[in-house]
Amino acid sequence: MTFEVEARDPACGARAGLLRLAHGEVRTPIFMPVGTQASVKTMDQGELASIGTQILLANAYHLYLRPGTELFETVGGIHQFMTWDRPVLTDSGGFQVFSLAQMNKVTREGVEFRSHLDGSRHFFTPARAIDVQIAIGADIIMCFDECTSYPVSEEQAAESMRMTVDWAGQCRAHWASRAPAGQALFGIVQGSVYPELRRECAEALVALDFPGYAIGGVSVGESKAEMVAAIEATAPHLPEDKPRYLMGVGPPEDLLEAVERGVDMFDCIMPTRDARNGSLFTSQGKLNIKAGRYLRDFGPPDPNCGCPVCRRYSRAYLSHLYRSGEILALRLNTLHNLSFMLSLAAAARDAVIQGRFIQFKRTFLQSYMSGQ
Amino acid sequence: MTFEVEARDPACGARAGLLRLAHGEVRTPIFMPVGTQASVKTMDQGELASIGTQILLANAYHLYLRPGTELFETVGGIHQFMTWDRPVLTDSGGFQVFSLAQMNKVTREGVEFRSHLDGSRHFFTPARAIDVQIAIGADIIMCFDECTSYPVSEEQAAESMRMTVDWAGQCRAHWASRAPAGQALFGIVQGSVYPELRRECAEALVALDFPGYAIGGVSVGESKAEMVAAIEATAPHLPEDKPRYLMGVGPPEDLLEAVERGVDMFDCIMPTRDARNGSLFTSQGKLNIKAGRYLRDFGPPDPNCGCPVCRRYSRAYLSHLYRSGEILALRLNTLHNLSFMLSLAAAARDAVIQGRFIQFKRTFLQSYMSGQ
Repeated sequence: MTFEVEARDPACGARAGLLRLAHGEVRTPIFMPVGTQASVKTMDQGELASIGTQILLANAYHLYLRPGTELFETVGGIHQFMTWDRPVLTDSGGFQVFSLAQMNKVTREGVEFRSHLDGSRHFFTPARAIDVQIAIGADIIMCFDECTSYPVSEEQAAESMRMTVDWAGQCRAHWASRAPAGQALFGIVQGSVYPELRRECAEALVALDFPGYAIGGVSVGESKAEMVAAIEATAPHLPEDKPRYLMGVGPPEDLLEAVERGVDMFDCIMPTRDARNGSLFTSQGKLNIKAGRYLRDFGPPDPNCGCPVCRRYSRAYLSHLYRSGEILALRLNTLHNLSFMLSLAAAARDAVIQGRFIQFKRTFLQSYMSGQ
Repeated sequence: MTFEVEARDPACGARAGLLRLAHGEVRTPIFMPVGTQASVKTMDQGELASIGTQILLANAYHLYLRPGTELFETVGGIHQFMTWDRPVLTDSGGFQVFSLAQMNKVTREGVEFRSHLDGSRHFFTPARAIDVQIAIGADIIMCFDECTSYPVSEEQAAESMRMTVDWAGQCRAHWASRAPAGQALFGIVQGSVYPELRRECAEALVALDFPGYAIGGVSVGESKAEMVAAIEATAPHLPEDKPRYLMGVGPPEDLLEAVERGVDMFDCIMPTRDARNGSLFTSQGKLNIKAGRYLRDFGPPDPNCGCPVCRRYSRAYLSHLYRSGEILALRLNTLHNLSFMLSLAAAARDAVIQGRFIQFKRTFLQSYMSGQ
């Protein structure tokens, strides 16, 4: 993996980068659609490519439980399994082990947990989490970390963060010993809302020298101001020449705040989950297709959007599909929202390259925050 | 609408035809995917066109209740509403009024019923059913009929059939008086399993001179032998130069039996419903993707199928998607099953043109009935 900062905005920390991965290039800033179970909910791989998806996210915890790592070893990895030939990133599953599974014991060695699917017992060490991700075969894999909930005391956050750093060292060593071809390992900065902890964690991880760094522990219930502060307490302590990934973020406005502060990569389930709930992102803000006024509205979902949905279908048709319980409603809403996020990231990138990111952000938010 | 029989198989009643409709040509025999609520479940219009769908089915009862005929009048019909520029056929909704709605009263004037959605009261006369379909704007519209359940006594079947003939006359007259541009009206032959009633009904409808004729009242629980007998009791009494549509049929083997006996058009929810239940049609019979043996089967769903699903995805991936509750499973299964039915109809047509339909049918069934 190589990463090159191609342009820096003169007025803020925003950058445009080129990430070269085993399965192709990724131009940053980039939004990564979430395909937890090796499928982006309701989407087909051909569609994802057609709207400009450069890299997908999948989840090691889910894929470890089902279909299991043995299958990935047999078929030759997630790209072959899904027939997706562009880059993939897997989250280690740390977040899911702590949130979805029934935990039995957490020690410095690792976590004993029960599957949320069938109650079976499993034990993840940092090394095991790396082995699982090597078997799955993504281009970018993540350290096994503990994502603190919100709110959490500074003492608890410190203790958790130091365990995450310890685990990161174990992950780093195990990854180096196995030296997997074409799989880059990212460290994850924790520390909750405490700037000193964020700095301490970032510095400890940078000392371990990862190919890239993530900012974790955000989008867990904190305020937008706290999230921005966490980014500001972290990004300056990360190397300029390495990619930065803000995990689980986010809505369009949060993505832009983070880009302004030097973040390159994003993932979030919101565009896909909101879509399935009938909420569409548009240049004039979110639109709830369930509202009665769209039943007779023959305009496109977003008049300023060039996605396949906006080019073909009307709000009235989407509204009818949603009210009728048709699966096509979920598909078209998802395709639109993902297109919107990918276009937003691409537009942010163009703005950085042209040195007008701040103006771009202001113009976008003025319209987006005006509401439907 | 014009219909031309292009070829007749020398060894049976099978024919290949060309149906010219307001929105394009349909080459028969043809399978029509079912889009009850102006959407073929899980499918996008672009996908339907890409697998060779020539004509879609929609349902007047459902569309009358939601989104309502006023919307179709505003937007200019179902083609504009769905953005589907190929032909559409609407069923009159008779079947649904009698099966889905709560009926209050049936008289020779029409049916009073309550909506299955909200309990609201409605009254359909034959003329009203035609008005609704004219508003929806399909290329082919159907007479309002009573579809008898199975089993039914000959007396009841006769009484019901005679009411259907009476209603057909009213539909025919109302349709002629409104003279809608580009909308052909088909009569529907009823008569249950009674050959004399089938003949009587067919002759009465032919005397009314419809652009096309349907065989209704099949696929309601009768045996395959009874269904074939109903076709044989009807088709010979229909004009050679008019299209014949067997309503609600069917599985691949039934479609071929009907083609052999001179039927040109088919619709059935089975390919789409079965798909959503994990059942895939293949050249070696039906395959249940939920079966454990497919979890590690990296072959295509059907090795003899050239559809977009079989070209790209494995049984193992489809199996994983289905077990994981991913909507993409429903999509891909549906796309495959519809492709299978469309290919089967196209292959049957080719066989008729080449005068080898009987051999084609035997070869297909030998493999299809061999089971997975």
